[in-house]
Order: sequence, then C-alpha cells, then structure tokens
Amino acid sequence: MIRFECDYTTGAHPKILEALVNTNGEACPGYGEDPHCERAGAMLRELCRAPEAGVHFLVGGTQTNATVIAAALRPHQGVLCVETGHINVHETGAVEASGHKVLALPAEDGKIAARQIDEYCREHYNNAAWEHMVQPGMVYLSHPTELGTVYTLAELEQISAAARRWKLPLFVDGARLPCGLAASDIALPDLARLCDAFYLGGTKAGLLFGEAVVIANPALNKDFRYLIKQHGGMLAKGRLLGVQFEAFLTDGLFLEIGRRETAQAMRLRDAFQAKGWPLFVDSPTNQQFPVLPNGAMAALEEKYSFEVWAKADKSHTAVRFCTGWSTTDADVDALIEDIRML
Amino acid sequence: MIRFECDYTTGAHPKILEALVNTNGEACPGYGEDPHCERAGAMLRELCRAPEAGVHFLVGGTQTNATVIAAALRPHQGVLCVETGHINVHETGAVEASGHKVLALPAEDGKIAARQIDEYCREHYNNAAWEHMVQPGMVYLSHPTELGTVYTLAELEQISAAARRWKLPLFVDGARLPCGLAASDIALPDLARLCDAFYLGGTKAGLLFGEAVVIANPALNKDFRYLIKQHGGMLAKGRLLGVQFEAFLTDGLFLEIGRRETAQAMRLRDAFQAKGWPLFVDSPTNQQFPVLPNGAMAALEEKYSFEVWAKADKSHTAVRFCTGWSTTDADVDALIEDIRML
Amino acid sequence: MIRFECDYTTGAHPKILEALVNTNGEACPGYGEDPHCERAGAMLRELCRAPEAGVHFLVGGTQTNATVIAAALRPHQGVLCVETGHINVHETGAVEASGHKVLALPAEDGKIAARQIDEYCREHYNNAAWEHMVQPGMVYLSHPTELGTVYTLAELEQISAAARRWKLPLFVDGARLPCGLAASDIALPDLARLCDAFYLGGTKAGLLFGEAVVIANPALNKDFRYLIKQHGGMLAKGRLLGVQFEAFLTDGLFLEIGRRETAQAMRLRDAFQAKGWPLFVDSPTNQQFPVLPNGAMAALEEKYSFEVWAKADKSHTAVRFCTGWSTTDADVDALIEDIRML
Amino acid sequence: MIRFECDYTTGAHPKILEALVNTNGEACPGYGEDPHCERAGAMLRELCRAPEAGVHFLVGGTQTNATVIAAALRPHQGVLCVETGHINVHETGAVEASGHKVLALPAEDGKIAARQIDEYCREHYNNAAWEHMVQPGMVYLSHPTELGTVYTLAELEQISAAARRWKLPLFVDGARLPCGLAASDIALPDLARLCDAFYLGGTKAGLLFGEAVVIANPALNKDFRYLIKQHGGMLAKGRLLGVQFEAFLTDGLFLEIGRRETAQAMRLRDAFQAKGWPLFVDSPTNQQFPVLPNGAMAALEEKYSFEVWAKADKSHTAVRFCTGWSTTDADVDALIEDIRML
Repeated sequence: MIRFECDYTTGAHPKILEALVNTNGEACPGYGEDPHCERAGAMLRELCRAPEAGVHFLVGGTQTNATVIAAALRPHQGVLCVETGHINVHETGAVEASGHKVLALPAEDGKIAARQIDEYCREHYNNAAWEHMVQPGMVYLSHPTELGTVYTLAELEQISAAARRWKLPLFVDGARLPCGLAASDIALPDLARLCDAFYLGGTKAGLLFGEAVVIANPALNKDFRYLIKQHGGMLAKGRLLGVQFEAFLTDGLFLEIGRRETAQAMRLRDAFQAKGWPLFVDSPTNQQFPVLPNGAMAALEEKYSFEVWAKADKSHTAVRFCTGWSTTDADVDALIEDIRML
Repeated sequence: MIRFECDYTTGAHPKILEALVNTNGEACPGYGEDPHCERAGAMLRELCRAPEAGVHFLVGGTQTNATVIAAALRPHQGVLCVETGHINVHETGAVEASGHKVLALPAEDGKIAARQIDEYCREHYNNAAWEHMVQPGMVYLSHPTELGTVYTLAELEQISAAARRWKLPLFVDGARLPCGLAASDIALPDLARLCDAFYLGGTKAGLLFGEAVVIANPALNKDFRYLIKQHGGMLAKGRLLGVQFEAFLTDGLFLEIGRRETAQAMRLRDAFQAKGWPLFVDSPTNQQFPVLPNGAMAALEEKYSFEVWAKADKSHTAVRFCTGWSTTDADVDALIEDIRML
Repeated sequence: MIRFECDYTTGAHPKILEALVNTNGEACPGYGEDPHCERAGAMLRELCRAPEAGVHFLVGGTQTNATVIAAALRPHQGVLCVETGHINVHETGAVEASGHKVLALPAEDGKIAARQIDEYCREHYNNAAWEHMVQPGMVYLSHPTELGTVYTLAELEQISAAARRWKLPLFVDGARLPCGLAASDIALPDLARLCDAFYLGGTKAGLLFGEAVVIANPALNKDFRYLIKQHGGMLAKGRLLGVQFEAFLTDGLFLEIGRRETAQAMRLRDAFQAKGWPLFVDSPTNQQFPVLPNGAMAALEEKYSFEVWAKADKSHTAVRFCTGWSTTDADVDALIEDIRML
Repeated sequence: MIRFECDYTTGAHPKILEALVNTNGEACPGYGEDPHCERAGAMLRELCRAPEAGVHFLVGGTQTNATVIAAALRPHQGVLCVETGHINVHETGAVEASGHKVLALPAEDGKIAARQIDEYCREHYNNAAWEHMVQPGMVYLSHPTELGTVYTLAELEQISAAARRWKLPLFVDGARLPCGLAASDIALPDLARLCDAFYLGGTKAGLLFGEAVVIANPALNKDFRYLIKQHGGMLAKGRLLGVQFEAFLTDGLFLEIGRRETAQAMRLRDAFQAKGWPLFVDSPTNQQFPVLPNGAMAALEEKYSFEVWAKADKSHTAVRFCTGWSTTDADVDALIEDIRML
C-alpha cells in the first residue's frame, strides 16, 4: 500500500531525526525553557522580522487553535471562520469546549473574504438584538485552507485591514504553512505584520510533531504560557520541539520541504488533468482533489490509500491525495503510471 | 405607542397577579420546595398524564435551554437545531458557553424534519473521521418556532421516532407553547410521551416570568436541581413560580391565553392579506411577519412598535407583529383600521 | 411554624408589591431597556456618587456572581475568596462551570484580609512553576459575609489597596448589603470608590427578587449585557427589576429594611446571650448563630424553622436564625419568650 | 550542572529511541489507528489481565487528567483529590477549565484515605443544601503521589471499595507509575481491577513523551476518542506513542526503569539521612525531599539543579531531588560525595 491519505504517515525527515538523536542525551530544563527552544524562537523571530514577537512551541494543531482562540476571546465572543474551517468541522468542538461559538461563513473555495468580515460585523451591530447574539471577536483562517487553496498577499492584506477595522485579532492556522509559503506570494514577515498570531506547522511537513506559534500582538501574548499549560499543550520535554524547529528552520529546510511536497502534488495534478478527471477544487498545494469515476477509484484503492472526500454524482467521487515530506518520486511515478493505464 | 414588538411588554395577567398578591405574606421554604410548587407540579403532571415526570420551574427561557441541554450532553456532543433556532441565534452562545456546539441545520420555515436527523446521524457515523467531529447528542426544536410556525402531531411523532432511532434525547422549547397548543393538534400528553423534556412557557403568556420544565426521561431528571442551581436558575423565592403556575394551570387559563393571543394575531393576519401584503412566513400563531412597503412601515412606526425582521427588497421590509395576553381588541382594531387607511 | 430559616421566606415588602401592582398594565420595552430600569439606575448612581458607573439588574445572586466573575477573568485566572465564601460553597460550582477556579483562603470569621491577598500573590509570582498554577485574577468578598460579619471601612480600604497593588479587580457580593450598610461604617459611595463591581441585593431585603450590580470599572462594564444574556440573567420583563428597585431606592427604603432586619436580629442575639448560649460567630447583622444544647434545639424546632449550621460537640449544635423584612415583633417576642422559658 | 530537578531532563531511553529510529520510515495511518498502537494496547491489556479494557495513548499528563475527568463527570460534579494533588495545584486549572471543581481534601503525606471519601460523601448528602453544592463525582489519586509516597494494596482496596460504595469512578494518575510499581505491592492487574481508569506514565520514565490510559469501566471508555480529540490529545503521528510503548512494555523495560530510578533515589536518601538531614516527607520512590541547611543548599546549587520545595524554618529549606532513567551512578556518586564533604 502506497499511502497518499495524509501528510503525516511517516516519522521525521532525516535531518529532524538526526537532530533528535544527537541531542538525546543532553539534560535540559523542561517545559520549553531550554536553549533549543530559545534558539529556535530567535531564529523564527528573525525569519519573521518580528524581534518583539512571542514564539511558543506546541505539540499539535487542534491544541494550538483552541489555545490561541481561548487566549483571545472574552466569553461572549465567537470566532469568524468559513464553514469548512478546521475548527468548525474537525476538532470535535474544541473551540466550543472552551466556551466559544464558531461563527461559520459560507465559502466555495475554503477562503474567507474581507467583505464577509465587514458584512458580518455591520449586520451584528445593526441588529437591535445584538446583545442577544454572539459578538464577533476574532478572525480565523487557514493558509493553505482545508481545500488546499491559498490566499494572495493582496487578499490577506484586505482581510487584515477588515479585521483591524472591527478590532478583531486575526489568527492564521498554518498547519500546512510550508506549502502555503511555496505556493503563494505570502512570506513569513507578511504574516507577522498582518496577523495577530499565526503558526508554522511542523507535523505535516516532516517533524515528528510540533507547531510554532508566533504572536505579534503583545496583549495576546501576555500570560500565554499559562494557557498552553491549561490546555495540556506544555510538553514536559519541551526541548524536543526546540530541537526539531532548530533543524527545520536551518538553511530553509521548512521551505524546501514545503516546495517538495507541493511539487510532487503538481505532478499528480497534471496526471489527473491529463486523464480528463475534473478537480473538485483547484489546489496549488500538497492536497489534490480529483473527481474519479467510481471504477477507477476502486481500482486505485487496491494499491494506494487516499481519502474519500465527497460524492460527486452517482458514478463519480471526489477524493483527496496528499503528498508528504517522504513521498518519493517512485511513489508518484507509480501512481501516475497506474492512472494513465486505467 | 401601541406595542406589538413582543409578547412580554406588560406585567402579569390579572389572575396571575391576584394570586401573587394573595399569597404575598405566606412564609414558605425557598428554592422551589414549597407547597405551591408542589401543587403546580402535580397539576402539570396530571395535565400531561405523566405521573412520573419531573417538573421544575425556572425563571427564563435562555436559562432553561442552557440547563436542559447541559444536563443531557456529554462534552463531545452537540445539539441538532435549525439555523434559525433560538439557541443558535439569540442566546449569546449560552449553549457554547456550556461547552457544546449547536449543530445547525437549514430550514425555510423554522422547522426541523425527521429526515434531517436521520441524514445528519447517518453521515456522521459514515464519516471516517467521525471522532474528529462533534457527535450529535440531542435534538432541539421549538413549538411554535421562532417564525411562528407549528409542528403537526404526525411530524412530531416522526421526529421523536428519528431521535429515538439514534438514541438522541428530544427537547422541545415551549417558550410560546400556549400558542402552539392553540394552533396545532399537539397536546400536553403528546409532548410528555414523545419528548424527553419540554417546557411550558409562562413569560410570553401572561406570567411575570417562569418556564415549567417537564422531564419525562428519568436519566435526564436525575440531579437536575443541581444543574438549575449551577446555571443560576434556582429562584430563592421559588414559591413565586409555583404560585403563578398554579393560577396558570387552573381552569385552563394557559390555554385560554394561548387561544386569545393567537386569535388576535389571526385578525392582524387577515388585515395584512386583505391589504395585499405578502407574508414573509405563514404563521398560525401570535407572531405575524408581513412584508410591508417601506412607506407603510414608516407610517405605522409613528404609532405602533414592532420589530424589523429582514429586508425583503429595496422598497419592502419584513416585520414582526406580536400579540400578547394584554393585547386588547381596541389595539388590534386601531391597527387594522390604520392599515386599511394607508 | 414561625420561619427564621432564611431571609426570603415571604413575598415582597408592601411598598415593592404596590409598585408592581401599580405598573402592571404599562407596556414597556423588554430586557431592561425600559424607563423604570433607567430611573432606578440613575437613582443608584446618584446614591453611589458614581455618575459614570454601569448599573445592571439581575434576578439572583448566583447568576450575578457567575456573570461578573466570568466578565472579569481570562481563562487561566481564578478568584480569591475565603473558604466559606458563597461562590466556593453554595453555588454548585457555577464559577468553575464558567471555567475558573475559586482560590480558597482560610478565614475564621468569613472575612478575607488584605494581608492574605498580598501573601497569595507574592507566593504565586515567586513560585518557579507559577505558569503551572492558576493565576489570581480577582478578589471576591461578601459584605456581610456568609457568617453575618461585616468589614469596616478601614479594612475595605486596605483590601482595595492590596487588590489594586496586584491589579486585581475587587468584587463585593452584596446579597445582604442592606444589612451591611446598617451594621458597618461602609456606605454606598465607599463601595463605588473602592470596588470594581458590587451589588445591592434585593432578594434578601424585601424584593420578590433582584440584585443591582454597580460596575465602577469601565473595562469590566464593556459588553456586560452580552454576558448577562449568556448567563440567562436578562429578564424578558426587565421592568419588574426596575420597578422594584425604584421603590427600594426611594426614601431610603433599602436602608430602612436593612436596619429593621438587623435590629430584630440584635434582639435575638441579646436573648441568646441572656440565656448563656455562646455564639458560633459574633454577627452584627440579620444572621445569628447561637450554639444550642441539643435538647433546646429539639424543643424550638417544634415551633420555629431555623437552619442547622454545624455540630459544636456531642450535645451542642450551632444553628442559624435569620430575620427578614417580614419578621414581626410578635415573631421575635414569641421566640425570645420561648428561649427564656426553656 | 548535574540535573536532579525533575525526571524529564533528557530524551529517550536508548531502547525507546532505537525503536523510533527503526520505524521512522514506515507509513502508517494516523491518530493512533496504526499497528504499533494496536500491539502496544494488546500488550498492556495482557499485562493488566484486562482483556476488555480500553487502552488509549496520550501525549502528556495534564491532558490525560483533564480528558479522563471530563469524560467521567456530569456538569454539577467535582473530583475528590488531596490538596497537594497535581490537578489541584499544578495544571493551571485544567479541570476547572472543563467546568469542574476539584474538591480538595487535606492530607499530610499526599495520600487520600478511604475514610475521607466516606466522610465527604456522607456530609454532602446529609447537608440540607446539598443541591447547592458540587456533587462528588469521582475520586482522583496519584500513585506515587506528588510527594513520592505510595499506596499499599490494602489502602487501594479500601479506597476502591469506598468509591464504589458511593458510585464514584476511581481514577489513578500514574505519571510516575513505574516507580510506584517498584516501591509498592500494587501491580498492574490490581489497578485494572480496582480502578475505573488509570494511566502508566512514560514521560517520566524514559519515553520522549506519552501516557497510556487503561479504562476498565466500559461506560467511561465509550466515545473516549472523541474526548481525546477535543482536548487536543490525539497525536497525528500517533504511531510514535505505539512504537514507544511497544518498546517500553517489552521484556519489562518499564519495570526495570522504575526500579532503577527508585534505587538511585534510595542511595540519595541514605546519604541525606547519614548526613543527619531530616526528610520533609519519607518517600520510597524517585523523588526525595531532604530538609537542607540553607548554607548546604547554596553550596549544592553551584553544581546540581534541584527544586526548592518549601521553607522549613529560617535556616532550613525542604528541596526536591529527582532521579530519572538517565541518572548515572556517577551523578549519584558525585552528589553523595559532595554531601558527605559539606
């Protein structure tokens, strides 16, 4: 079975693993107060050109989203997000478990628009019964989105402006940010400048685990470590996060992995299109959503793992193929050849 | 200003007020453990033909909804509800503040359908990532709905069957139940038989305040008073609720008020239709939603209070007129005449 | 049965009831946005000499405590309170249900000391693992306390100074504030000056229900009505609160009731002491805690209701007698005579 | 600096690291549904002689505690725990953040007694205002405790019987269970038989991270994976937990590490006692709490890291020395020699 079902099927990229092995015997203070976390934090601040930003390392994405959102909102506030957003669909209500409503907005391509923020807020404050409704308190988006699509820098600037117009912190979920950096014109300093907080995801780009949160807004950064601890995100051997991110940020490894995941996915995309299979959504990143004839799907399932996404019609199904740091040329070649032969 | 903006503009129905005045000097135990609450509970059990049901008296609807839902759900569960449902829109996220997602379903007329429950649950358990999604844990509906529409007994039976098929408690918000009883073929014993919990609303039908919760499901009733207290719903002078509901339930006063509110609304409905104004939604109860030319709206606003509901088009607006226990024939006559003259 | 078990056994003081009856037919906007609430708010601001303060009317004390505390704290913060505090013991964990720990401090007389605030905060920030512990985020006290004791103005000033030293909002639970005003040198303007928020309790001083929250701190007042609604505390017929507080605040009725409750309790206190019964705690307000021989307790229980408070030793029990607005001279005379005769 | 400040200063035990390296390239399904987790679960069930138990692998202890407790309690319930319990002191209110009060009981040696459970419950249900108080809903203890002390099998049997008498699930925090197994007569099958849930901690015994939860009570196990996900504890590359626990459970490695940590600590204990330093608490496991003269403390701090625990008197301080999987004979020898020479 060749696995294209997600981007976290294998362990760590060799350079990450090597760093872990090499530092295994070092004795460090716990809870992220070790020299590795310190260095990784400094490197990330430098890459973001944000010398004052807070940097925190957490284990996983759901935890990170719930922690940042809980840190930002007062109890009567909710977070604006597209209907397909990860926090709205795939985190078993972790945001609601912290007491907050996800204010879901429609979107065809997984992207929120600046216009939607303005409209939602305007309608909220125009409503006579506004105090009976959840107050919009934050904007959440993911880049790339759950559908693999990306924002342009211009779009992000408009969203940031809209959020600031309504005094809403902007939070970018970067679980797949290395691919987003590879496939858009948005760079780390843009995120640090335009967002109140964002994270650079490691889990889906070759780390064993780990998400690096950058908090540009000092009010949000205040006491943030208390919130990490409360949400169960403060790893005892926090150095494991520091060690991995040091390696990840060294010599642009994170960019290289993002570019490689994306490039492999583009080869798959070309093969789907050459075969005449439509794309459920046109994604420029490491998730690809071809619409397959059910017969072809069944044939491919014998040799490849991938995710069933949505029923397209009686005889077609949208599926998701994901590439990861460990996807080999041979894996992709095999799949392309099998598609061609179908 | 003649007020049609809601059904809680005035104090209590004379019989309710009289009961409060007459019992004012009695010394009773607190927190609903007084003879009045006991008698009112027994009367309601009798009216529901549910001798084993739990009956609890709370102050208001938001509190009641949040308390019942929190009592029923485990942390990973959410409550199925139409998008326009009160808990989804107008309770400032009280359900989410208890940790639970409202699983909102589309509906044009404010009503949930048995089919939607089946579909949602089937899709949930068919999804490979089901444990990453909020589990449906309860069904909530209001009768009448936020749009004034009512369920038929046949519909409620189907919904109850669907809910039981998936082992979901069914909870009916009866904030305006007296009107629902007047305008549908559903009677109190049907609710006690088909629901796990429901409430008979007093606030919108002539009480100063008060909602009587009937809990037919013993598992849900267990320890319910702890939850009332935790949610701030245990009135110190609980006898005020008992006294009011005793009067409300005596000689069918609650039914009489429901019928009267509904009848006054039907007179308004006829006037809107006679004028040729379409109805935003066709409601058989005390909330009426005509679509007014903006000029007519402005003219009526000088003399009457009512609620702007939705913009219909550039020159028309859907509004809501509500009748209440204290709406007089003269109030309605005046409005009908003014409409005719416009 | 003559009831001394609590201060909410009967309905409303005649002047309060009269106001409710007289205004019953008025049609008002809902949710506290009516002229009565407006006037009562203005009267209270005037009495507090706090023209900028927010004033909000809620139904009950548990609800009020939970709402104010939730409004003030970030998720990692807790509220300092004595072990016997109402929020720590008698609200079924309503504060925890909002996500916050009650940081309980020992106290023999039910009173928190400025010194304890300083010590707790100093220790917290000196602890190496401070971020692993709940951060003190607020100071809560009740005046009078659960044990009937009161603060002096000097004590309150010290507490306020300590709270401000650590940037902790100070919140005073005034469920029995009318008695506190009668039995201490603290006046309403002192509370408005020294606290961030406090409330004047009506339920235990002759209203049907109702607590008037005064919020002196603008940051805490911001969006407070959203929180009231979320906590189920926004009464639909909010005018009932306004009407009652208008009467309560007129011509010092609240002070008169507080003084009267306290004076009746002092007569009981004298009788206990004349009998040679020790006081479990020496309370100058409407709650009295004599330690009774068990035989005397059993004898009194036949004619009077009162609360068993704590076992003193094998043959003695501390109990609580409460006077209320409706406690008559005859009630007190009868009890005094029966004590004398035992 | 030789680090005795905690038991998680270094990376993984060589056998654990080797397993991670050897399996790094395998492609597995995510979220704990891989063959390694399956095998490790089967091994643990076998070791517990609990073929029907649920086994789940989480990343850290705070997360595990919060998840198990949230899974077990209804909203009005709290968890009984000694005042020094980890959930009461060192998890930044994670239990309260899930809505539940920690019901803290006094204890000198960090241990809860069966008698305390009985007393607390009896008092709760005897109290007239019981519904106004948090209901005891679970018993939590740690073995070893925060103070390094352990339960005997007889004590655990009594506690289990008391918990079952009151229908309270019993949950054992085994963050340091390998040491507990080494230093008490309690074995894994005893825990599976006497508890509703417990966990075997890996983080403090040579894993990079990871806690294995065994849930013997099927009602508590139901839907548990939803709760893991909601609490951010479902590791994407869940195989990392399976791989580590496979190695940990093979040939008794977990027992060997527990024995070794404990043996090193006993050598320190002997040295403290030989020096005449009293023990703050007499611990038979890997945490040792000598009371040091402040001068000696200052001298040792130059070469060793350890934790200041409590001020004993003006000139003495209780401190904590922890041994871990990687504590070498040389580390211990050096410290012993330095103590002797002081």
